[in-house]
Amino acid sequence: MRVVTMGEMMIRFMPANNERFEQAVTYNAYYGGDESIVATTICRLGVPVEFVTKLPENIFGDIAKRKLMEQGVETSHIARGGKRLGLNFYENGASIRPSQVIYDRGNSAFAEADISDFDFDDIFSNACWFHTSGITPALSDNCTKIVLSAYKKAKEKGITTSIDLNYRRKLWSKEKAQACMKKIMPYIDVLIGNEEDIEIMLGLEAEGTNVESGILNVDGYKVVFKKLMEIYNLKMVATTLRESYSASDNGWSVLVYDGKKFCHSKKYELHLVDRGGGGASFSAGLIFACVNNYGIEKTTEFAAAVSALKQTIVGDFNLITYDEAISLMNGNTTGRVQR
Amino acid sequence: MRVVTMGEMMIRFMPANNERFEQAVTYNAYYGGDESIVATTICRLGVPVEFVTKLPENIFGDIAKRKLMEQGVETSHIARGGKRLGLNFYENGASIRPSQVIYDRGNSAFAEADISDFDFDDIFSNACWFHTSGITPALSDNCTKIVLSAYKKAKEKGITTSIDLNYRRKLWSKEKAQACMKKIMPYIDVLIGNEEDIEIMLGLEAEGTNVESGILNVDGYKVVFKKLMEIYNLKMVATTLRESYSASDNGWSVLVYDGKKFCHSKKYELHLVDRGGGGASFSAGLIFACVNNYGIEKTTEFAAAVSALKQTIVGDFNLITYDEAISLMNGNTTGRVQR
Amino acid sequence: MRVVTMGEMMIRFMPANNERFEQAVTYNAYYGGDESIVATTICRLGVPVEFVTKLPENIFGDIAKRKLMEQGVETSHIARGGKRLGLNFYENGASIRPSQVIYDRGNSAFAEADISDFDFDDIFSNACWFHTSGITPALSDNCTKIVLSAYKKAKEKGITTSIDLNYRRKLWSKEKAQACMKKIMPYIDVLIGNEEDIEIMLGLEAEGTNVESGILNVDGYKVVFKKLMEIYNLKMVATTLRESYSASDNGWSVLVYDGKKFCHSKKYELHLVDRGGGGASFSAGLIFACVNNYGIEKTTEFAAAVSALKQTIVGDFNLITYDEAISLMNGNTTGRVQR
Amino acid sequence: MRVVTMGEMMIRFMPANNERFEQAVTYNAYYGGDESIVATTICRLGVPVEFVTKLPENIFGDIAKRKLMEQGVETSHIARGGKRLGLNFYENGASIRPSQVIYDRGNSAFAEADISDFDFDDIFSNACWFHTSGITPALSDNCTKIVLSAYKKAKEKGITTSIDLNYRRKLWSKEKAQACMKKIMPYIDVLIGNEEDIEIMLGLEAEGTNVESGILNVDGYKVVFKKLMEIYNLKMVATTLRESYSASDNGWSVLVYDGKKFCHSKKYELHLVDRGGGGASFSAGLIFACVNNYGIEKTTEFAAAVSALKQTIVGDFNLITYDEAISLMNGNTTGRVQR
Amino acid sequence: MRVVTMGEMMIRFMPANNERFEQAVTYNAYYGGDESIVATTICRLGVPVEFVTKLPENIFGDIAKRKLMEQGVETSHIARGGKRLGLNFYENGASIRPSQVIYDRGNSAFAEADISDFDFDDIFSNACWFHTSGITPALSDNCTKIVLSAYKKAKEKGITTSIDLNYRRKLWSKEKAQACMKKIMPYIDVLIGNEEDIEIMLGLEAEGTNVESGILNVDGYKVVFKKLMEIYNLKMVATTLRESYSASDNGWSVLVYDGKKFCHSKKYELHLVDRGGGGASFSAGLIFACVNNYGIEKTTEFAAAVSALKQTIVGDFNLITYDEAISLMNGNTTGRVQR
Amino acid sequence: MRVVTMGEMMIRFMPANNERFEQAVTYNAYYGGDESIVATTICRLGVPVEFVTKLPENIFGDIAKRKLMEQGVETSHIARGGKRLGLNFYENGASIRPSQVIYDRGNSAFAEADISDFDFDDIFSNACWFHTSGITPALSDNCTKIVLSAYKKAKEKGITTSIDLNYRRKLWSKEKAQACMKKIMPYIDVLIGNEEDIEIMLGLEAEGTNVESGILNVDGYKVVFKKLMEIYNLKMVATTLRESYSASDNGWSVLVYDGKKFCHSKKYELHLVDRGGGGASFSAGLIFACVNNYGIEKTTEFAAAVSALKQTIVGDFNLITYDEAISLMNGNTTGRVQR
Repeated sequence: MRVVTMGEMMIRFMPANNERFEQAVTYNAYYGGDESIVATTICRLGVPVEFVTKLPENIFGDIAKRKLMEQGVETSHIARGGKRLGLNFYENGASIRPSQVIYDRGNSAFAEADISDFDFDDIFSNACWFHTSGITPALSDNCTKIVLSAYKKAKEKGITTSIDLNYRRKLWSKEKAQACMKKIMPYIDVLIGNEEDIEIMLGLEAEGTNVESGILNVDGYKVVFKKLMEIYNLKMVATTLRESYSASDNGWSVLVYDGKKFCHSKKYELHLVDRGGGGASFSAGLIFACVNNYGIEKTTEFAAAVSALKQTIVGDFNLITYDEAISLMNGNTTGRVQR
Repeated sequence: MRVVTMGEMMIRFMPANNERFEQAVTYNAYYGGDESIVATTICRLGVPVEFVTKLPENIFGDIAKRKLMEQGVETSHIARGGKRLGLNFYENGASIRPSQVIYDRGNSAFAEADISDFDFDDIFSNACWFHTSGITPALSDNCTKIVLSAYKKAKEKGITTSIDLNYRRKLWSKEKAQACMKKIMPYIDVLIGNEEDIEIMLGLEAEGTNVESGILNVDGYKVVFKKLMEIYNLKMVATTLRESYSASDNGWSVLVYDGKKFCHSKKYELHLVDRGGGGASFSAGLIFACVNNYGIEKTTEFAAAVSALKQTIVGDFNLITYDEAISLMNGNTTGRVQR
Repeated sequence: MRVVTMGEMMIRFMPANNERFEQAVTYNAYYGGDESIVATTICRLGVPVEFVTKLPENIFGDIAKRKLMEQGVETSHIARGGKRLGLNFYENGASIRPSQVIYDRGNSAFAEADISDFDFDDIFSNACWFHTSGITPALSDNCTKIVLSAYKKAKEKGITTSIDLNYRRKLWSKEKAQACMKKIMPYIDVLIGNEEDIEIMLGLEAEGTNVESGILNVDGYKVVFKKLMEIYNLKMVATTLRESYSASDNGWSVLVYDGKKFCHSKKYELHLVDRGGGGASFSAGLIFACVNNYGIEKTTEFAAAVSALKQTIVGDFNLITYDEAISLMNGNTTGRVQR
Repeated sequence: MRVVTMGEMMIRFMPANNERFEQAVTYNAYYGGDESIVATTICRLGVPVEFVTKLPENIFGDIAKRKLMEQGVETSHIARGGKRLGLNFYENGASIRPSQVIYDRGNSAFAEADISDFDFDDIFSNACWFHTSGITPALSDNCTKIVLSAYKKAKEKGITTSIDLNYRRKLWSKEKAQACMKKIMPYIDVLIGNEEDIEIMLGLEAEGTNVESGILNVDGYKVVFKKLMEIYNLKMVATTLRESYSASDNGWSVLVYDGKKFCHSKKYELHLVDRGGGGASFSAGLIFACVNNYGIEKTTEFAAAVSALKQTIVGDFNLITYDEAISLMNGNTTGRVQR
Repeated sequence: MRVVTMGEMMIRFMPANNERFEQAVTYNAYYGGDESIVATTICRLGVPVEFVTKLPENIFGDIAKRKLMEQGVETSHIARGGKRLGLNFYENGASIRPSQVIYDRGNSAFAEADISDFDFDDIFSNACWFHTSGITPALSDNCTKIVLSAYKKAKEKGITTSIDLNYRRKLWSKEKAQACMKKIMPYIDVLIGNEEDIEIMLGLEAEGTNVESGILNVDGYKVVFKKLMEIYNLKMVATTLRESYSASDNGWSVLVYDGKKFCHSKKYELHLVDRGGGGASFSAGLIFACVNNYGIEKTTEFAAAVSALKQTIVGDFNLITYDEAISLMNGNTTGRVQR
Repeated sequence: MRVVTMGEMMIRFMPANNERFEQAVTYNAYYGGDESIVATTICRLGVPVEFVTKLPENIFGDIAKRKLMEQGVETSHIARGGKRLGLNFYENGASIRPSQVIYDRGNSAFAEADISDFDFDDIFSNACWFHTSGITPALSDNCTKIVLSAYKKAKEKGITTSIDLNYRRKLWSKEKAQACMKKIMPYIDVLIGNEEDIEIMLGLEAEGTNVESGILNVDGYKVVFKKLMEIYNLKMVATTLRESYSASDNGWSVLVYDGKKFCHSKKYELHLVDRGGGGASFSAGLIFACVNNYGIEKTTEFAAAVSALKQTIVGDFNLITYDEAISLMNGNTTGRVQR
């Protein structure tokens, strides 16, 4: 039984040596994208995963596929064709200077994919879990249809479903997002999203948290999570809690609710190497833990550890082992040399 | 009095250290694009130049503009707006392995520019020469209109005009190219293009030259040039003559015809550092020489030297001085250290 | 109306990858120098600037000029000639290991410039502000004369003048510095300098601050600033307040006094990327704010933000935008990703 | 039906930027080893391949396996355990300065593997071809046994077998090599080896060729090939013909004999990027062509093209496509840009 | 009079740019090894040192020797021969992600050295101090004999001896270590080791300190140090006290006991560049101070400063000057630029 | 008995990746200078060498000394003091684009050294050979005196002397050079110089050779060499013969005359990595061969091989072994991998 995730892959070009775009001659290129991070992380932890996307019929599409193969992800349902691979340009911030992302993902192969590119009946055979993020339906109207169709088919087949809300204001409006989510939510078992996402995409206001300023209100989250659980009849609601002290240093913990208990993980004080992929790694840790029936406490701490570790690794993929996540979860946070 | 050139700027991402796309983590980024190379080269040689384009209102647009400013090019008529800056990905070949370019220039700011973005009346005040390449009208129907309008206005104002045919099969069909060129050619004074370009874009067949195989037929060129001169009432026809021995080593000479005399420059045996920009640098050398009334022999040799030198320099821009071009033209080809 | 700054440009060679001089094979080269940082920063923020210097007639002189052009700075009064461009070698420290600078600026083109190289009458036409630092007169007796002559001409023309004291013990003695400053101070409107500079160059002792140890005494500064204001009939006195916790982490705030009010900016906790150019960026922010009549509070906070941001950017020039400075000034210090 | 190859994987550490060991601080690391190059190349060309080896239970073993997965090679029969992954250090030569390899492969996981680590009955199910090189039995007495056992089982199952002699004097003596080959040769269908290998390992002397000096004697090869065919009842004998003009430039062709016809491929004049893997790529091209029943002429030219291309690519693996090999084979050797 | 140290040299390969092994293509190579760090550090501080080891007769052995010569270390008693130079692979951690070392030192030239390779009578002529670490006898039974023989000869000659316990569990068992130390301790004057080392190698249990968790118990150390002093009749016992907050940030102080007084140095808060060599640098600082009769307070603070500085420098060798150590010891910890 | 060489050391800054100065952000730094290359090369080949110079009392002076120590050169007579270490900036050419050197060596420690800095009586004890180049007296009047004094003392002591003329037009005029050489030549045993040097510095005209154009006239050289031998009563006259085909490819041979026989070495066709140090390496090879009494044929071929090899190695120092020189001399020019 395997996990299926679906989404767009992108190449991220990042100026080397912490330079600004304006001074960069040298860029490092990382293949990734939210759902492919989820896929590869779960696969590395030890559960089989299939990734579904559409890649262009060019060398960048080939490489993207090989990067998944390298991580052990199954790629047999990846469609090929279309114009281009989506790109983003990421300038790593430092201290008080924020990081910047410039997306250049318009007209990508996946954004222009057709529902006929994917045979979900076949894709979901032998699957136990399906996951994507709110970025995927936002890419295009076609993608909205594909995602909805996928969730419907997944529920039909009795597969557990999850979504990471991940609102991107440059991709769609609040109205469009809400209209879409209204159709998708009935098929969702596990919801992941911060207050901002929840407010914008599900219309549920919370209080006291200000994502911009780095102020967190865990109690406010609890109220919202309870409401979500009631409204949508979910199995689990979860969020990451990032405290942005600066572009270099963040606090990181996660909150998981299963309808019975709220688990707030230990907080990691992170000196960031690359914060990208933190959220996706949380989804991955959560899904892996659920598939392995870890129980809510262990699930929470495991997903926190998996996602904290990612942020110490440059690039999109979370190049850790199961053992490293367990070791961190068990309290080995002092960074002493492993000989 | 200044030269005006117009076209699209792009960022070229090239794997560092001669790696293939598939193994590259590190890319070098170069700002350029054909007509901006013409602009910056002429400006460096010593004639004022204005470059016309449309750049997006983001950091990449800003940087593109600064790169022109750094070279002394006037930028006051550059329009801003649109979606994105065009990109291309360039894998440098070696020996028997050819170089590869993957263009990703769709929906660029300039391709989607409107004729209202440019006030050619103002742009051409104080101008003595206008140049663009066949890539520019190929970008979009809008661009075709803009280019045609520019050439008309230029001729109206008595400005010398030139075009480098530069056929790109991925941008438009032979039919579309010919239809466009039919409208443009009446306004052209100086035509630059190889036999392949001339055959495809102007429908004039030559014999004996095979650009693919590296075989050149200078006599065939002469016949075609004479015909072009007659048909289009040109002042000058010119071409570069590249002999591709391998991706690393090329022969390089140029052929110029002014209706009276054919001048075939000396041939340079080049060990290539970066062949990109060779053609554009030839246009630049030719225009600079014409503006300075060099006479056809000196014009030919100067343009050959300027364009040969470019191919020993990595990146798009031709970072040479006037003195270096003159020194090479005068026979200093032994590469002895300049102390 | 434009700002004029004058000073020496240098190339800074810095070992790559935080290496010590002793292990460095690879160096990064940055063009800069105090007053050119002031010039480029003001220009980037949006006020026209002309930079005055003398550069050698070689490729390094050419590049230095292009670097200014890239930033939009006017360069038409730059003299050319002389022996060499000044250099400095900068080893970036880390944690408890201090950074080290080795200056190699003797016999530079600007240090050996003659007063006849500059026509200040022409330079100051259309100028509203003139700025240099105490490094400039210290370079040579000729430079002392040039600076004095410039300030005299500036006042003659009713231009606002500022100086950043910036004492460099390797360039001149306390006695020589005081003798020079005695002549210059009557022409100064805005004085920038820390207590050490003020004590050494103006002979005004303060108490409680120890620049070496990182201890600051803001009250002590206030007393000194009041005295300076009285003695020299200034419009403004200002200083940066650096708290050196280590070579990697500093506190940063600024203090501005306009004769009526002392404004102490918010303090930034900086994880340093490159502390070079912090002081010059403060001068730039201050001048830009004054030229735009920001009022003392906004001037203080704006100059603090501009100079704090610089220290998160590698290289000499402060590659920020006006919007970024405003955003930080308005409290966006958490370093969240800008999408 | 798939091809099986077996051998040791190694990490190659190569000083970056063409430096000598003595000056290198930076090394590039490439995973490879002869038979893994054969495996990955065949797999990239389009025939399924399984690679058999033993890798240590550490991160380097994990990575080696992932590198194979990235190329699509099946890895399910790779044993894990033992002390270490073999290493080699490779200093790239230039011009008259030869390249140098320092092997550090003693006590590697594969060299110390036991025959019980591999179940060849299972490994060869669904296999159509088995290949290894003379390096493999040379690694240890255990490896000799493993190789012999593999060839026996392969013949038992009616699988085509090939060996690339590849004599390594640091691994075993001429006597030991001959004793081993005497046992292996009866099971071999396709023999690959140059005259030096054939003389040392099979005791068959040829005349006129001097591998050291770069002099080739194709006629001498033909005589030897005929003898080999008779003695060992082979299906095919083949060799690469490298003419070493210098460490930077080589001539490259191949010679194949099927008992009826000698095919000497066209000769490529190579400007070398990385000559490593040329021989292994020849084996790969040959096996791929045989499996696809190309006929001897096409087999010869295809294998020549595949192996020539490798030498223009840095690293161990031959990162080409089937189309690129075909294009070169068909005469596209001028290195013109592929747009 | 000079100091003699003895031990194995290794090359450390470390992924560049803080990458994980799994993503690293580029590695930096540093020559070092514990006792060679002690040797080079003492030599740089100003006391003559001779280093004793065995290096292979290949280019890596040659380079290792040159690296010592570069630092001024005498190398005339280095034996040559054997199979290989020991290696280790070091992945630098970050934040909560620990660093990892993979040793690959088996069968090294020094591990397989014979007692006949070294003439300690000659080696110790003109020597005043002999030092090695517990790693050295652990390398092989031969090495155990060599070390024991060296200490005996040193005491015979009236030379002061020191050992840094440095237990490495991958090299030998607790039992083997204790058996060895029982023989060595009678010849030791100065003992360096943390509680874990002392407990495992000398069987003396302490309480309250947990090296793994970063908790220190200075009082516990004092009790143990007193016992050690009594049992082994030592002149001095010392240890470093590392508080591992994370892989990026550590507290660092040292504790020295001379039988009369316990000196606990000031604590440095380190932002780590490369923690490797911290312990060896402490030994070096201690030995240098003792040889120069600094007295226990100055000895303690000097050794603390020398070892703290190392951790701000990348690579194995402690590339500092005597003046820098003194400056830090005297309180210059603010990292202000040294102009 | 050891060889003594004397001269200035410099740091050479060279743009990385074959970039032009104008585009270089990254430079590689190499310590060297003509006579230090002679010293280190001879020392590496196996004859003890002492190098005499004056280095500044700063980190660059320290590093320069360590670089010599690393190569085994004796440094005990190096004076310390003065202002700065000389620099040069070297842009590596390519193909038809020549390399460029910008010297920045004015006011260097050695150029401003005083004759009292060196005790030649002591320096020449145990010396058998003294060598410098024509660059050394050209640095300053002081240096002229130092060099003359050194040669006088050397002859007094019966030491063999050599000079490599090496005319540098930026350092002194033809007149000044001739005046100096007139005083030095009576003390010279072995003269090294090309026709240009000989004509300018000794006033002896040759015919048919044009160093600029790469045309060589060996017969012309022979006539001149004979005259030199007669006039100056020399033991040996020698020159390198570089044929500059381009900045990337050169022919290289050498000519040696001992009064009896002219030996013209075999010619190497070099693909240049770094042509710097070719001449100095020739001097080194010649001196080493003479000291070892090789006889003129072997001396010629050995010196040719040593100097050809240098040009395949990046950096100033000739990082070869004696064995490599012998192997090349014996005809191993095919660049085959040394396993």
